[in-house]
Amino acid sequence: MAILQPLIDMAEICFQQGIRHVVISPGSRSAALTLAFARHGGFQPHVCIDERSAGFIALGIAQQIDSPVVLICTSGSAAYNFAPAVSEAFFQQIPLLVLTADRPKEWQHQYDGQTIYQTGIFGQHVKRSFEISPDYQHPDVQWAINRVTNEAVNLASIAPNGPVHINVPIREPFYPSSGEDFRPSDQVRVIKRQENEAVWPQTVWEELLDEWENASNILIAGGQGKPDSALNTVLTRINEEWQIPVLGDCIANLSGREFIRHHDLFLGTKGVENLRPDLLITFGMSFLSKEFKLFIRKNPPKYHWHLGEDAFLADPFQSVTRDIPGKAASFFEKLFEKLDYQSFVENSDLGHDTAFHTLWLQNERNARQKKHEIAKNLTMFSDLSLLDIIFKYIKNQYQLHIANSMSVRYANLLATENEWSGVFANRGTSGIDGCVSTAIGAARVTGRPTLLIVGDVAFLYDRNGLLIDDLPRNLKIVVLNNSGGNIFRMIDGPGSLPELETFFETRHSFSAQRTCEDSGIAYFGVSGKEGIDIVIQNFLDFDGIALLEGFTDPVENTRAWRELKRALH
Amino acid sequence: MAILQPLIDMAEICFQQGIRHVVISPGSRSAALTLAFARHGGFQPHVCIDERSAGFIALGIAQQIDSPVVLICTSGSAAYNFAPAVSEAFFQQIPLLVLTADRPKEWQHQYDGQTIYQTGIFGQHVKRSFEISPDYQHPDVQWAINRVTNEAVNLASIAPNGPVHINVPIREPFYPSSGEDFRPSDQVRVIKRQENEAVWPQTVWEELLDEWENASNILIAGGQGKPDSALNTVLTRINEEWQIPVLGDCIANLSGREFIRHHDLFLGTKGVENLRPDLLITFGMSFLSKEFKLFIRKNPPKYHWHLGEDAFLADPFQSVTRDIPGKAASFFEKLFEKLDYQSFVENSDLGHDTAFHTLWLQNERNARQKKHEIAKNLTMFSDLSLLDIIFKYIKNQYQLHIANSMSVRYANLLATENEWSGVFANRGTSGIDGCVSTAIGAARVTGRPTLLIVGDVAFLYDRNGLLIDDLPRNLKIVVLNNSGGNIFRMIDGPGSLPELETFFETRHSFSAQRTCEDSGIAYFGVSGKEGIDIVIQNFLDFDGIALLEGFTDPVENTRAWRELKRALH
Repeated sequence: MAILQPLIDMAEICFQQGIRHVVISPGSRSAALTLAFARHGGFQPHVCIDERSAGFIALGIAQQIDSPVVLICTSGSAAYNFAPAVSEAFFQQIPLLVLTADRPKEWQHQYDGQTIYQTGIFGQHVKRSFEISPDYQHPDVQWAINRVTNEAVNLASIAPNGPVHINVPIREPFYPSSGEDFRPSDQVRVIKRQENEAVWPQTVWEELLDEWENASNILIAGGQGKPDSALNTVLTRINEEWQIPVLGDCIANLSGREFIRHHDLFLGTKGVENLRPDLLITFGMSFLSKEFKLFIRKNPPKYHWHLGEDAFLADPFQSVTRDIPGKAASFFEKLFEKLDYQSFVENSDLGHDTAFHTLWLQNERNARQKKHEIAKNLTMFSDLSLLDIIFKYIKNQYQLHIANSMSVRYANLLATENEWSGVFANRGTSGIDGCVSTAIGAARVTGRPTLLIVGDVAFLYDRNGLLIDDLPRNLKIVVLNNSGGNIFRMIDGPGSLPELETFFETRHSFSAQRTCEDSGIAYFGVSGKEGIDIVIQNFLDFDGIALLEGFTDPVENTRAWRELKRALH
Repeated sequence: MAILQPLIDMAEICFQQGIRHVVISPGSRSAALTLAFARHGGFQPHVCIDERSAGFIALGIAQQIDSPVVLICTSGSAAYNFAPAVSEAFFQQIPLLVLTADRPKEWQHQYDGQTIYQTGIFGQHVKRSFEISPDYQHPDVQWAINRVTNEAVNLASIAPNGPVHINVPIREPFYPSSGEDFRPSDQVRVIKRQENEAVWPQTVWEELLDEWENASNILIAGGQGKPDSALNTVLTRINEEWQIPVLGDCIANLSGREFIRHHDLFLGTKGVENLRPDLLITFGMSFLSKEFKLFIRKNPPKYHWHLGEDAFLADPFQSVTRDIPGKAASFFEKLFEKLDYQSFVENSDLGHDTAFHTLWLQNERNARQKKHEIAKNLTMFSDLSLLDIIFKYIKNQYQLHIANSMSVRYANLLATENEWSGVFANRGTSGIDGCVSTAIGAARVTGRPTLLIVGDVAFLYDRNGLLIDDLPRNLKIVVLNNSGGNIFRMIDGPGSLPELETFFETRHSFSAQRTCEDSGIAYFGVSGKEGIDIVIQNFLDFDGIALLEGFTDPVENTRAWRELKRALH
């Protein structure tokens, strides 16, 4: 293996840079990479035959540990099967180090197996795509592999985090001969990248504080983000001490008691114009609430500060006036200090209208109460009533994973009053693909109780994640089986089309039961309210991985969802 | 829908250009495309929730009908899930028209759902990637959509055939309101592309015939290609009348009685140097036989003509001296005419050494006989013995589909003496993905008896193809379940590694049985030789889609395969 020594050293660099997880799909061309990580001893390996699921397992792990996870596949279309997860990781800013084995270039387009155009295969969906020369005995190449690996690992973890790709052409022989030495070199250079921190000069603060003082009504709103205790602490103080409303969807993971969570329910109603802020401060990634986006676009604030470490200008509300680079938590901490001091010296009152906060709170409380009343009256069995009961029984601090489509809409409504240890959804690209594998990756690495809410279509789409060995015992899956893509019946447009069932819902009669039997997952099925409490308790109490499948009627689900929306508006 | 009228007309253009099949994955952004094709009335729709499988179903259909199949998906990572099939179609020269709905560009990288960088998303794996402007009311855009659709359909079918991509950004509203007119315009311009034919001028023939006459030993060898009766007729005449050996793997679909099919078994042996041709004439796509490639590279011919309609210079034998653009059948027909005439006027004998043909034939017959002897002695139950029995019972003219990895190697050895109505394998990229869906697409559109041979890993990988409605009743699937990727035990290198089972074979205990029950597929299982004949007969006689799963032992499979190879060498 002396020839491929630089690849063995690659694993050592990754280890010294702090990487601990590697997700491997089997292949011959990639054998040296596989063995380099498998034999190193410092990595927890995860093996998955389906690269599409492997990609999302890696994403699920990296999402939790905030450190790059290595992904390895062989040459050819294998790399393309990583692409859905890579694009999700890119837009959700999750660090991955994607190592794709490749054939040397001379075999491209020569009718030879597993040879495609892998250079830059992930397009703009990686922070950078590196490529190695295949002549590993040349000192320049050895230097480059060392440097590129260091750069790639560092780059994946520089905010905004994201996937980085190294394409690795490898010539035969792929395997070490027996007895051959196979371990990292004694001296492997590691290039550490020092952390730095964004500070804002006094002149910037002066400008900002001018605007702050000019604004009577201030609203803080968080997009998708991981649980961040420093951020939550300072936002809670700002919310409580300064009476400034703080708003977040469930995936924002904002945990203040009096934060606004039901905005999607009341911002679409009439007479809410006075909820318009003069100053809007946003941070984080995507917002679930369509009503919030529409409300701000329709009622633009005078000032809109967006905080973040993005490398691009995100303006989904079409109102940003200041792009403030840096960490949200640091910014709010500094802001709090500055304001506190100012208010102490110059002002006796809070400098802005606390009635604004009261107004938001009234709407929030009103929506929450109405929601409870309506939920109580969900007499028929439906996705909504099932989730409502499940969330009531959730006791210990689960981590919640939610698939896209209806699951995330339901959860953003009903999962707002549990204490989750984190709420996650793949809102980078909002695809139907990969939610099962993401939850598996997360559950594997945190060891925490993990609950996945998923529709039947998303479950079937990504069921190959369940093919991995050693499924996490701490994972509970709820499948809302409404026999197809129920969302198409609920949204305006397709619901009344004659093509609804065939081309949009794609009605089917599949169940998750046999898939569970195949993978040794305890299975619980419910199709009505009778006896449901006991089934749910048994499901949640089950010691090991379990799946609860609720068979609901798509027509009834649609009725319940519309009734709830109507009653609230 | 007046705004989206150009998209409705797109379907009409496709229809008038002869397209009849559309594979649709559900989505909202793509609704207008879906409805345009679904409501047209002239298309057979195929609906599949998993875009990865949808892509291969489209490929399987297009492979058979030699005419573009339309693929439709919504925006976001959906398009990436088409990529494995698109890259396979590109290298296997299969015509697809890939229509990906997209969000308008202004929403790229704005934390908004299902928005990725779709421009040119398939890289170099499409013949061309077009993009439409979203302002459909502008006359230039209307003109462009008409022109681009015409160009794309034509381009997909110009040799070498291949996938063409149109990225279609669409603004809301996505759905027609009730009662709204939704049909193609009265006058939709269709731009037909006239066929042309390659002819070779007399000066070229003179040069070629000079080389032909200079070569005492001539060999004709075909790579992957569809059954082509004109080609087979002329090659049979050349083979029989001129005593020139014609060689092809099973996927070459060459049907002459005395053609060489067992070359992979004898070209790796010693003392075969005199099988070296002076003139090698190749055509078609990839060759399965590694021994043949190695043999020619080691014993390069003096002249090597490669015939084909490729747009690139394929030289996998590293010996091409003339690249002859055009159809293989036309070339050989013309050659036959020219030679016949020449031989009549100028020569009395064949002008080359018939002993060369005899030598090839001796090796072929010898290998075939040895193979039969060894197969007869396969006393233990194994993949090989199971397939050997199955192929004996195959009576009616099946179309054979073979997955990559060991399946294609087994079939190239054992499937050589059946009369197939076509042998297909995804040797464009030779990936493990998509073989189930490809066979489904093919079986759906031909209606012919279809047999798929697939390993357990490839079957599991692509089992989502079985989620479509209305599985073809004419499909029989044989799963060689050896509990993992058995090939890694057989090839040199990984077989003796301690990591073999975990990282390469990925041993598992999954069976296809429950997947069959889920999809209403008749299931037959065998795990030994006892009573196997009856099971196989029942399986083949079953009136409807059925799956036979052979549970074999990976160690025994390896022993049998190695013994066979050893005995032959």
